[in-house]
Amino acid sequence: MLPRPSPARPLSKQAYKAQVLPLREELLGVQQRLRHATFPVVVLFSGVDGAGKGETVNLLHEWMDPRWLHTHAYGKPSDEERERPEHWRFWRDLPPKGQIGILMNAWYAAPIDRRAHRVTTATEFRRELQRIARLEQLLTDDGALILKFMMHLERDTQRERLKALERDPLTRWRVTAEQWRHARSYDDLVEAEATAVRLTDASQAPWTMVDGSDERHRSLVVARTIRDRVTRRLHEDELARRPRRTANVAKVLHAASRRPASARQPKPTTRTLADLDMSQTLEKATYEVALAKAQGRLNLLHRKARRRGLSTIIVFEGWDAAGKGGAIRRVASALDAREYQVIPVAAPTDEERAQHYLWRFWRHLSRAGRLTVFDRSWYGRVLVERVEGFALEAEWQRAYDEINDFEAQLVAHGIVLVKYWVHISKDEQMRRFRQRERMAHKRWKLTDEDWRNRKRWKAYEAAVDDMVAATSPRHAPWTLVEGDDKNHARLKVLRTLADRLARALNEE
Amino acid sequence: MLPRPSPARPLSKQAYKAQVLPLREELLGVQQRLRHATFPVVVLFSGVDGAGKGETVNLLHEWMDPRWLHTHAYGKPSDEERERPEHWRFWRDLPPKGQIGILMNAWYAAPIDRRAHRVTTATEFRRELQRIARLEQLLTDDGALILKFMMHLERDTQRERLKALERDPLTRWRVTAEQWRHARSYDDLVEAEATAVRLTDASQAPWTMVDGSDERHRSLVVARTIRDRVTRRLHEDELARRPRRTANVAKVLHAASRRPASARQPKPTTRTLADLDMSQTLEKATYEVALAKAQGRLNLLHRKARRRGLSTIIVFEGWDAAGKGGAIRRVASALDAREYQVIPVAAPTDEERAQHYLWRFWRHLSRAGRLTVFDRSWYGRVLVERVEGFALEAEWQRAYDEINDFEAQLVAHGIVLVKYWVHISKDEQMRRFRQRERMAHKRWKLTDEDWRNRKRWKAYEAAVDDMVAATSPRHAPWTLVEGDDKNHARLKVLRTLADRLARALNEE
Repeated sequence: MLPRPSPARPLSKQAYKAQVLPLREELLGVQQRLRHATFPVVVLFSGVDGAGKGETVNLLHEWMDPRWLHTHAYGKPSDEERERPEHWRFWRDLPPKGQIGILMNAWYAAPIDRRAHRVTTATEFRRELQRIARLEQLLTDDGALILKFMMHLERDTQRERLKALERDPLTRWRVTAEQWRHARSYDDLVEAEATAVRLTDASQAPWTMVDGSDERHRSLVVARTIRDRVTRRLHEDELARRPRRTANVAKVLHAASRRPASARQPKPTTRTLADLDMSQTLEKATYEVALAKAQGRLNLLHRKARRRGLSTIIVFEGWDAAGKGGAIRRVASALDAREYQVIPVAAPTDEERAQHYLWRFWRHLSRAGRLTVFDRSWYGRVLVERVEGFALEAEWQRAYDEINDFEAQLVAHGIVLVKYWVHISKDEQMRRFRQRERMAHKRWKLTDEDWRNRKRWKAYEAAVDDMVAATSPRHAPWTLVEGDDKNHARLKVLRTLADRLARALNEE
Repeated sequence: MLPRPSPARPLSKQAYKAQVLPLREELLGVQQRLRHATFPVVVLFSGVDGAGKGETVNLLHEWMDPRWLHTHAYGKPSDEERERPEHWRFWRDLPPKGQIGILMNAWYAAPIDRRAHRVTTATEFRRELQRIARLEQLLTDDGALILKFMMHLERDTQRERLKALERDPLTRWRVTAEQWRHARSYDDLVEAEATAVRLTDASQAPWTMVDGSDERHRSLVVARTIRDRVTRRLHEDELARRPRRTANVAKVLHAASRRPASARQPKPTTRTLADLDMSQTLEKATYEVALAKAQGRLNLLHRKARRRGLSTIIVFEGWDAAGKGGAIRRVASALDAREYQVIPVAAPTDEERAQHYLWRFWRHLSRAGRLTVFDRSWYGRVLVERVEGFALEAEWQRAYDEINDFEAQLVAHGIVLVKYWVHISKDEQMRRFRQRERMAHKRWKLTDEDWRNRKRWKAYEAAVDDMVAATSPRHAPWTLVEGDDKNHARLKVLRTLADRLARALNEE
């Protein structure tokens, strides 16, 4: 059963009014302070029909400043939404730092509905809820404040409420056939809700149970909870005062203490950079014939994937001058320019900086059947951000899980995910740097940063080995590419890609 | 007839190769220089099937760096696209400053196709082309470099080409039933293309006619044109060197000389701010009854609009402290929070700064049936940007036309557009400023900027009068709201809005 909300205490109109006025002023004040804060507030509403989700949100809009408050409701997904993983539409709507976003039903509605109507088994439902818990954890780890309200109504009250709504011509439109269908499966819905609350009630994203039977009561409960929790968080942040970082020290220390570093260490693996046989070469004539053949095969396979709506995402990581760009161009030239995009990942824009670090990658997920190449990627979190100290240890340590989750969602949606680390030896890199210095039209490629990165070769090597060990599930393995010989590297990239596509298409 | 392209001169494979190598290096160099430029490059391809549009774009991707080159092709619009004006999908894909965007067929394809198959009359087609010309003018006025290629093929060559493509199993998929349908209406298509070229061949966005019959020839023509025009433009910008502005002096002077200021002056009108009767008031009791009634009516009307997929856009402009926020909240509280959004317009983000000033408004156009409130809007261009000198005179002068065009597209798409200027007298503003200073929870509302703006009252007044005179077509009139009495103002806003909605719904 659902944990019971504190019961509604009847409140006279006068008493209510007297409480509302100062509350509204406080809410407006909180919004203003929040605008300069470095975290977003995500408010979720869930619960049975008639318990006042819609009315409460409308009231919040009336009480607060609608310019800094955005509400999103989720009905039938649009075709653009259906072509991406289920959570894409929510990532799209996440509020940036300093704002409040109300997501109605959001990520809970579909899993609860599916479970109540026995579309999913208890085990599947549990798995969906775990994924949700991880999403919320990921957001709160990044600083987001998540408030979740479960609006509850007893079965009989619900029936009366729906009937009353139907009687009033002004509200009749709100009672749909779907709502009566829901009402008939009241017990199953409430049971699914109870499971959802039990499995996703975390200290960073707790549920507030709200008795929805009395309008005044529920409005005050919700509004006060928002006021109090945002105020408390603003206060905590002021105490911690780490102006240029989202995470505050206390939180990081807490996270670190909660998970001992040893437990988070990637498991040992035999596949390390040191194991690669870097002597592999391919002679030009052989290469050219093989390349043309591999490109032709890739072209055919991708056209088939296009027709089937199968998307492909390719991640390229590697040392500076390892030949990522050249490999990408060999892939691209096998494809139709209309069917792929290359996303070069450099410094985030300010809109991206105001969101979770994965947000900028979610936004580039393509419609069905396209191929997307990320030239550097979300792995920056555990590579450059780790080595250069842009991310705290707790941040890059937990990124392995976050990334595995993200990629699991891509793969679960049917996307073919191919990841390359293009490797070169330190000597070969020096040779290429020198060459770039000599050639006028390649000189732009060599920056001071490249020289700086080179000085941290050892640290990067360790980061790469950890990354490969920690983010190589069976559905999203790393392909390590021996890059000292460009011909060998490019052909290996093309062939692996074609093989992965073929397997996904059940070909060959 | 189409202007004839310079005929393809046969080129030996050797001669071609010798020319391609340096050309590729130059193209890569141009791309690198472009990355630091303050203008985008928009490349359009049009022309009959089989003339090599796709092949040429693929070749460009092979020759250039695909990381700074994005190609978009436009097929059947998605449901999210269908719910916005026709040009929304193109605005969505426009390249930011420093990048090259290839839009295949883009805004020409649908109008040409409709005309060739007699869906539109010659007059309608001409009107569509004029709209396109204005779009291109607006982009180039803002600094964009637009290159348009019309790929041509004689009728017989086209038939042979399609047959050859069909014979080759590797290319057979590219020949669709639609292409044969196009081929059958070859003459009509070419005639429509000829009209399009004639009416949209402007000096800032000229057409390059390309003989598509020889692959080597057409590739070189296109690649060289891109290289030369981008290089020339980079050179011009370096000469003008106005680092912090997009527009360069020469261009502005040219624009100013081309259109005498007098011709661009808004026509005189009787509706000026001075004419408003600012003494109107409304007593509280009357107001409260009337407000509830107006909100109820608005609620009913908007629900009907929602069902019919009719979108509404409301623009609020007005003096500081005129009561825009209060009016917006009275509108919002009549609606369901899930059905509207309020967009507060402040400083643009860096992604927005890298685009045309209208881009940030296009991106907020909602799906069908929603209501969007802009708290300040695109009119900033002819108000604050004019008065504060953020925009050059030529820029804000031409903005009247640009805005009228933008709004005409909204209205043509069926969107109800309602625009308010909320007016208060200078004395009333002072009274409200003083009041804000006194009230703790309203103090954040009063900024130094408000005091600065107040000093330029006269200049703003002139700008408002010009704006109202120049941007009041019958389908998008301004409503001037006498705001000294808040009750009167709020009620007028609600009533006008409901009236406009009712008319659009053919009600009452």
